[in-house]
Amino acid sequence: MSSITREEPNYFGAGPAYLPTEVLQQAAQDLVNYHGANLGIGEISHRDKRAINVVDETKQKFIELYNIPDTHEVLFLQGGGHTGFSSIATNLLANFAKRTGKKGKGAYAVTGSWSAKAVEEAQRLGVDVEVLTNSKEVFGSYTDIQPFSEWKKPNPEETAYVYYCDNETVHGVEFPFIPQFDGIEVAADMSSNILSKQIDISKFGLIFAGAQKNVGLAGVTIYIIKKTLIEQLPEAELRELGIPVTPIAFHYPTAIKQNSLHNTLPIFTVQILNLVLAKLIKDGSLPEQEKRNDRKSSQLYQILDKHADFYNLPVAKGVRSEMNIVFTMKSPELEAKFLKEAEQANLTGLKGHRSVGGLRASLYNAITEKSATLLAEFVDKFATENK
Amino acid sequence: MSSITREEPNYFGAGPAYLPTEVLQQAAQDLVNYHGANLGIGEISHRDKRAINVVDETKQKFIELYNIPDTHEVLFLQGGGHTGFSSIATNLLANFAKRTGKKGKGAYAVTGSWSAKAVEEAQRLGVDVEVLTNSKEVFGSYTDIQPFSEWKKPNPEETAYVYYCDNETVHGVEFPFIPQFDGIEVAADMSSNILSKQIDISKFGLIFAGAQKNVGLAGVTIYIIKKTLIEQLPEAELRELGIPVTPIAFHYPTAIKQNSLHNTLPIFTVQILNLVLAKLIKDGSLPEQEKRNDRKSSQLYQILDKHADFYNLPVAKGVRSEMNIVFTMKSPELEAKFLKEAEQANLTGLKGHRSVGGLRASLYNAITEKSATLLAEFVDKFATENK
Repeated sequence: MSSITREEPNYFGAGPAYLPTEVLQQAAQDLVNYHGANLGIGEISHRDKRAINVVDETKQKFIELYNIPDTHEVLFLQGGGHTGFSSIATNLLANFAKRTGKKGKGAYAVTGSWSAKAVEEAQRLGVDVEVLTNSKEVFGSYTDIQPFSEWKKPNPEETAYVYYCDNETVHGVEFPFIPQFDGIEVAADMSSNILSKQIDISKFGLIFAGAQKNVGLAGVTIYIIKKTLIEQLPEAELRELGIPVTPIAFHYPTAIKQNSLHNTLPIFTVQILNLVLAKLIKDGSLPEQEKRNDRKSSQLYQILDKHADFYNLPVAKGVRSEMNIVFTMKSPELEAKFLKEAEQANLTGLKGHRSVGGLRASLYNAITEKSATLLAEFVDKFATENK
Repeated sequence: MSSITREEPNYFGAGPAYLPTEVLQQAAQDLVNYHGANLGIGEISHRDKRAINVVDETKQKFIELYNIPDTHEVLFLQGGGHTGFSSIATNLLANFAKRTGKKGKGAYAVTGSWSAKAVEEAQRLGVDVEVLTNSKEVFGSYTDIQPFSEWKKPNPEETAYVYYCDNETVHGVEFPFIPQFDGIEVAADMSSNILSKQIDISKFGLIFAGAQKNVGLAGVTIYIIKKTLIEQLPEAELRELGIPVTPIAFHYPTAIKQNSLHNTLPIFTVQILNLVLAKLIKDGSLPEQEKRNDRKSSQLYQILDKHADFYNLPVAKGVRSEMNIVFTMKSPELEAKFLKEAEQANLTGLKGHRSVGGLRASLYNAITEKSATLLAEFVDKFATENK
């Protein structure tokens, strides 16, 4: 491990986000001199055995951590949320067309700005979109999730997939349930809560996540996909049906066939994922991580609730995110004072998203309980002093 | 700069490729603790001023190095060659449609496996492709380039762009001229020779290059694009004309409007680019780099030519690549012996591409003259000893 040091930051940015210092120190070593090769892992061909090992090891750790059954594949692509939006729509329509001979619809739950963006991108590409629930229309804002029983029910004969965002990073809304449909597979965006808790993979047709919040640096996206969703009609037939052809770099069947190495994968970025996952396994895997995340967010929410006359929590209790805790105060001046004093106390990255304002504390996997406690104490003290 | 060390490798891999040790040492530092912030540059939001500075600085260095005129924009996207193939086709068709109201063709020069792949991808997506020259058909293999006067001439009324690959990494063929057409802009893949020499940017409608050969790690692609090629028809009209809509993450007008930050750019990977370019400027910019590259490749070609009875150079003299020097020997056994002894002499990454076999020495910008000379001496000695 390298000797590059830093004082532990208490950094609560929403992403790209804090990573464990020991992971970055090891990554720094691997960047310059990987396993004594006098070459960095990023300078080696992606066809080299050492690079392939990095991909295989990382994949295997996902399988281990999530207990991924044989029914599903794990793959890595470049891109992030936006390439997920487009690639899920076009790949899953192409699969539905293979199964039914038809151009299906994409059905969406809109519960925050990220799922809204997914809809926007699907429509740009020419996908027929059906919206099953839209929190903004139901509640006036993205602060709650409509009970599942009240959602519009999609027709399995016409619907290629249902899409939802499991954790809305900007609005701080997290699903407390997994929407399930007879005869339609569900695709979930877990960019900001991947590996934050145990889940039953068999309930998902597809899960995707950009690495840069919970598990690594920007530039790699993880896909977990059910094997029945892989096969597709040939491109010429897709075009005839009016289904947009997926660019080859995001074509799931090709990526799976080539072990995520059809085109050049950024192997150094995958290696950071590999190191993050190794640490997660060493530290007790998902059962322990889930408990740590519960403790971190409960502590902060409790303090915020204790000062309900001072802090405003816009998100309904039942759908509060464990990852992104959004709160506001009665004036922008007070919020500015909070940010300034927090920074003086070495607590940073707390400004809310430009579209919603206020404050946001992201308590991703890598945020230590010590950092979370320092923040909770500061939140408590600031309320007491400024009421 | 970090204290992570390595012995200088003499690594001639074709990409991802060797980077200067001092660049990687600085990058290692920036990965863990950027400018004393106790945070790595990859952990900071891409909306943070520090991240935006990295993008702006890197862009500015490209402008300085290539003397890029005001008529052109520089942008960075994720992806690599394959996303270049798709995004160039769909973006430039959408621009042609804006200018003419028509679905234009893409005209291609096929001079090696990379330009052949570009054609393949365009056809997958439903682009009407016209091939202007195909070396394999003319010469039986990708070992020469047809004189420009003999190329098919595209019709500017129907042609959105002409595409060619300036340096074919696999086959070791580099263009000694820039193809130019009245009324049609040229798009060039310079993935493996970007910034290797001075060029006149005004002759290009578009240049693109994956970073991982000459200027950085995999995961970022550089685009230099003429402003007249940016504007596009709205998506609904494109779909009516049968033009594939570009996924938003690769939509040039959006990327330019958002300073390459519409979606999350891998800032750490851009920072490596920034460091590579800073070193290039410090070391005399392109005039000096061009001379170094000339000396490195001339020296090796001279030795290979001296032993023309022992080494076979498949590529015609006039189109030999300065970056990727391809040669074979009379038997696979002898080539294996060469590779083994080269490795013993600490000269690695010399195996030819799996599709063509033989040997390949990639003498990218970062390869020092010292490394190139050690290789040339070994090549000389091996011939003398094994004739």
